Amino acid sequence: MPADRIILGIDPGTNIMGFGLIHDKGKKIELIALDVIKLDHLDNQPSKLKSIFEKVLALVDNYHPDEVALEAPFFGKNVQSMLKLGRAQGVAMAAALYRDLPIFEYSPRKVKQSITGHGNASKEQVSAMLNRLFVIAEQPKYFDATDAVAVACCHYFQRSPGVEAKSYSGWSSFVSNNPGKIVKP
Amino acid sequence: MPADRIILGIDPGTNIMGFGLIHDKGKKIELIALDVIKLDHLDNQPSKLKSIFEKVLALVDNYHPDEVALEAPFFGKNVQSMLKLGRAQGVAMAAALYRDLPIFEYSPRKVKQSITGHGNASKEQVSAMLNRLFVIAEQPKYFDATDAVAVACCHYFQRSPGVEAKSYSGWSSFVSNNPGKIVKP
Repeated sequence: MPADRIILGIDPGTNIMGFGLIHDKGKKIELIALDVIKLDHLDNQPSKLKSIFEKVLALVDNYHPDEVALEAPFFGKNVQSMLKLGRAQGVAMAAALYRDLPIFEYSPRKVKQSITGHGNASKEQVSAMLNRLFVIAEQPKYFDATDAVAVACCHYFQRSPGVEAKSYSGWSSFVSNNPGKIVKP
Repeated sequence: MPADRIILGIDPGTNIMGFGLIHDKGKKIELIALDVIKLDHLDNQPSKLKSIFEKVLALVDNYHPDEVALEAPFFGKNVQSMLKLGRAQGVAMAAALYRDLPIFEYSPRKVKQSITGHGNASKEQVSAMLNRLFVIAEQPKYFDATDAVAVACCHYFQRSPGVEAKSYSGWSSFVSNNPGKIVKP
């Protein structure tokens, strides 16, 4: 497991795709960037998918992440929406795979559990927990951006030596257990 | 509509992906290639998706198709299988979109209707109709390959001037109405 790595978190969607980049420096993690790719102004699906591919490829080429973590629900309302979501995920994955990056998937529940200690946490709670860890200069307009940072952090916790994923119960215990890993605002 | 164009047909799947390339020469269409990409030997989904992307990109770069036609079911058994299928489709689409190729989708029913005149035709019937049109030296082992040729042909019929899609009722009427377009075996 590399001690120094950049993780690209992606929350793929068909109308908005969130992304967040964190730097795992071993003793601490730093937020590099977070934002969304807006797709709702594009009037057809191929244009949206093309935009996702190009943007993710640009993120990979600009920030050189070592690993990519995706928030991926395994269940959904109906087959058509899952097909659309699968396409958006697939296109985002393709850009990472094209650059030979490993991909890791986490369910929304797993991400929430990892960040807040509760699988049913609200988006506001996830966002609040992330604010405890990072200096986020400006609150992002869309939760998709914080969701993407959250999945990157979830991956960090799963894969970090010394952080026991199974017994981990949220930021608060992490903060108290790992004072050296916290970047003070 | 270009009179001289190459159409890449793809039947995306999570275990086998069929592809077929046809050359629309205006007065006639010719079969360039058909085959499958086998994915069932790969033991994880990212490897499968990577293989799909690389293979489709190689097909695009080798054969320089002008348009890509996909067989895309809009309904399926359950949300999980549709999510997986959506990913496979998305990855295949990404390769085409990366090379700025236009994508066209057709439902399985539409493809069957276009080729045989019947939306509920069997794979054997679709294959038999294709055999009337093309000299297929060796029968492909997998129907996925002929399905991919079928969707390429379906796209040819939809987009070809002088071929009225709505009134078109299968190969047999096409053969009788367009003797000049048929390549005799």
